[in-house]
Amino acid sequence: MEDRLQALKTRLGEIQDLNRAAALLGWDQQTYMPPGGAAARAEQLATLQKTAHNWFITDEIGELIEALRADGADWDYDSDEASIVRVVARDYEKARKVPSELVAEFARVSALAFEAWTKAREQADFSMFQPHLEKIVDLNVRLAEALGYEDRLYDPLLDQFEPEMKTAKVTAIFDDLKAELLPLVEAISERIDAVDDSVLHLDYDEQKQWDLGVEIIKNFGFDFTRGRQDKSVHPFTTAFSISDVRLTTRIDTHYLPAALFGSLHECGHGLYEQGVSLSLDRSSLDDGTSLGIHESQSRLWENLVGRSKEFWSHYFPRLQNVFPSQLANVDVEGFYRAINRVEPSFIRVEADEVTYNLHILLRFELENDMLEGKVKIADLPDAWNEKMETYLGILPPDDAQGVLQDIHWSGGMLGYFPTYSLGNLISVQIFDQVKADIPSLADQIAAGKFDELLNWLRENVYQHGRKYTPAELVKRVTGTDLTAANYITYIRSKFSDIYDL
Amino acid sequence: MEDRLQALKTRLGEIQDLNRAAALLGWDQQTYMPPGGAAARAEQLATLQKTAHNWFITDEIGELIEALRADGADWDYDSDEASIVRVVARDYEKARKVPSELVAEFARVSALAFEAWTKAREQADFSMFQPHLEKIVDLNVRLAEALGYEDRLYDPLLDQFEPEMKTAKVTAIFDDLKAELLPLVEAISERIDAVDDSVLHLDYDEQKQWDLGVEIIKNFGFDFTRGRQDKSVHPFTTAFSISDVRLTTRIDTHYLPAALFGSLHECGHGLYEQGVSLSLDRSSLDDGTSLGIHESQSRLWENLVGRSKEFWSHYFPRLQNVFPSQLANVDVEGFYRAINRVEPSFIRVEADEVTYNLHILLRFELENDMLEGKVKIADLPDAWNEKMETYLGILPPDDAQGVLQDIHWSGGMLGYFPTYSLGNLISVQIFDQVKADIPSLADQIAAGKFDELLNWLRENVYQHGRKYTPAELVKRVTGTDLTAANYITYIRSKFSDIYDL
Repeated sequence: MEDRLQALKTRLGEIQDLNRAAALLGWDQQTYMPPGGAAARAEQLATLQKTAHNWFITDEIGELIEALRADGADWDYDSDEASIVRVVARDYEKARKVPSELVAEFARVSALAFEAWTKAREQADFSMFQPHLEKIVDLNVRLAEALGYEDRLYDPLLDQFEPEMKTAKVTAIFDDLKAELLPLVEAISERIDAVDDSVLHLDYDEQKQWDLGVEIIKNFGFDFTRGRQDKSVHPFTTAFSISDVRLTTRIDTHYLPAALFGSLHECGHGLYEQGVSLSLDRSSLDDGTSLGIHESQSRLWENLVGRSKEFWSHYFPRLQNVFPSQLANVDVEGFYRAINRVEPSFIRVEADEVTYNLHILLRFELENDMLEGKVKIADLPDAWNEKMETYLGILPPDDAQGVLQDIHWSGGMLGYFPTYSLGNLISVQIFDQVKADIPSLADQIAAGKFDELLNWLRENVYQHGRKYTPAELVKRVTGTDLTAANYITYIRSKFSDIYDL
Repeated sequence: MEDRLQALKTRLGEIQDLNRAAALLGWDQQTYMPPGGAAARAEQLATLQKTAHNWFITDEIGELIEALRADGADWDYDSDEASIVRVVARDYEKARKVPSELVAEFARVSALAFEAWTKAREQADFSMFQPHLEKIVDLNVRLAEALGYEDRLYDPLLDQFEPEMKTAKVTAIFDDLKAELLPLVEAISERIDAVDDSVLHLDYDEQKQWDLGVEIIKNFGFDFTRGRQDKSVHPFTTAFSISDVRLTTRIDTHYLPAALFGSLHECGHGLYEQGVSLSLDRSSLDDGTSLGIHESQSRLWENLVGRSKEFWSHYFPRLQNVFPSQLANVDVEGFYRAINRVEPSFIRVEADEVTYNLHILLRFELENDMLEGKVKIADLPDAWNEKMETYLGILPPDDAQGVLQDIHWSGGMLGYFPTYSLGNLISVQIFDQVKADIPSLADQIAAGKFDELLNWLRENVYQHGRKYTPAELVKRVTGTDLTAANYITYIRSKFSDIYDL
């Protein structure tokens, strides 16, 4: 039994080596790679991902899993051993359904699509990206069919990013959100001038923005001996081990929140990755359990901590110190209102907490329509713009600010977007539990102290890596199932206050 | 036959994908990786390198090579096809002799050794590195025995970096060099004050140094859409494809030549890599043919172009423009003399053209002594210092400026150093041929024009990649065999002039 467990761990470790190497190739592609590197990089990623897949789906691994399931019938459910066998068995069943050639084609197509998307976005020209997106949708249909589904083509794609979540459930949650958010957006839109955020659009020195972001995320507890931050067009977090976690950010010298909240957001992802128990190193459980849970952590640190009154009661004087002339005529209350200003806008990653989920709703609906052939890819920009008008009452001036703004499709990924909204909901559900467990939390944040919060999250969430499914983890941490209720209460309270509704 | 050739190319392509991915992991390790990443990186490199090795030494590849040798009996020797079969057959014979576990152990041991070396050098404490070096010497003895040799343990190790070169031949060449250089160093040492280089040790702004280096290497023809430059402790060049070539440099704000000539040097390597024929892409011939030939190109651009009077007649006014106060009191002749100042010193990479090869001689002798057990690793710092006194008349103040200065051993490599001196000799041999073929070369360089030079090198050297052995290439390009004669003539002439000997 020990031998079999060791044999499985050795195989998983080597597979994880390939996955982590592929992650580095992806990181480099988005941070430092010159344009000439794209073609070869596509081949390299295809080879690594195909090999990792082939190594994983061997009969040998299947037999080891089967034998260990019997061996470990009375292992503690929460133990590393039982969890590795349980989670890897689920991964294995899925992976066996996907032909290696499809995996390799995803890698190859998406590496080239990324380059095309970068250029298309620069030139605001969807037609440059269209043929690549057509291939990607086609590949995703083939993937969904290979994985199998009962209800919707979208189900198995969503399941890749949010295990065991279903399209129908997301639709139901989004219906709840829509019922709350559409009237709220309308009410706020009538008072749009009640909050002035012009102070955020002044000239902010790039290096000072960078340094301040680093200062704050260090204070949050991000360990720079086990990670770093670089620049990229689209901010993201990736990890090459529990002890090598890479954040990226982008700086806009005329919009302070882009880098500031971008850094806090990615830091939340990074704290999760750095907080996984070292006992899970190279086990394939050494990662976040789903994108929704991951996003709950980035949102918790970005919004529930970083856009709170308590946080700025501590950091606003520091910020004023760094940017004295820009912030001479605003006080902490005015700054707090500015960073929480609600206004329908084009770019998802810069959207406020109220409109954000409507951006996701739009993408969720369009992805389903693309997969099910209800919208032709050539018509996608029109469909996008139409929904923007319906949900947010605004029309993007060009494709760069519309359908081309996100990186995800260029990476081959459909089914990913809903996890952002699920993350928003879960962030509040978990944070409500933290507040119950740490009564002095608000005072600690107002004093710039985050260690008790971080320790709570490490203990209850981060250390477990992929041991528990998202549903198990939410139930275990909060005592209840996933719900939109906490989020709705939070949003209603916070923005009624700001907009005096 | 077409099918077999395609099958071989497909296999080689996938193996090259792994090798290039490993190169990226190595690049990241030296440029951006946080310290926490070291342990996992060692595992990842071991897995990639072991897998590339395992994929290469399969019977299938051996059979393809055998069959293609028969198929291609009347192929043109210079054709891509014949060259791929010929060169890969040679690689295959060597690779089959090396057990996979030894390859993996090299990767694992050297990744950890690199971290230990970095710290040991920082603290100038050889004892921190000693146990790692002991393992590395032991691994190299095992490697040499696996590869087999007739004369010296060193032969098969040298052959990894300089195919078909022998220890005895290097010894003979070094004897020629020693006979010339020792009296020359002695003669110059008596006139050490004839050249003043204090101007090089002023305060030079880091960013301006960086920008100037980039400006010059762009003018040399380095293509930044197919490559980039970053910073690292020890400058190096690596490539992830013919169209993704990475240079690194290091900047010393109190020593102008470090970054300036470092950049020109690495650029020479980079021009070689970028100049390989795209028809050899992913074939495993898409690389320089040996480290000696590679070094001949870095030295050609760094020294024969970059330290010449013609070059500075063009660039000195520009340099003065960038650093007006630092260079106010020196003219182009004085600057030319300063950058060519000869003085016995501790650090190889900063050594002048006259003393440089004595640094190599020392390492070549010590490597042989370590391998053959004539010096114990614990005694290496003493042995190093003793030879420094004998050849250069100076004693390093600590191990950081002595035995710990070079990265190579920490990377597991013994047998590498002689290629630097071979490169010096070959650079002059090739450059003498360029001058014969392009009579106006000196005028072109004095006008800051390098395109005809670059085209000549692409045509005669770079495009061929690994098609020809170093000996074949030297003969093909210069019409003669490798010799120290051209180098000795060059050194004697240049430095007799500067030192009025």
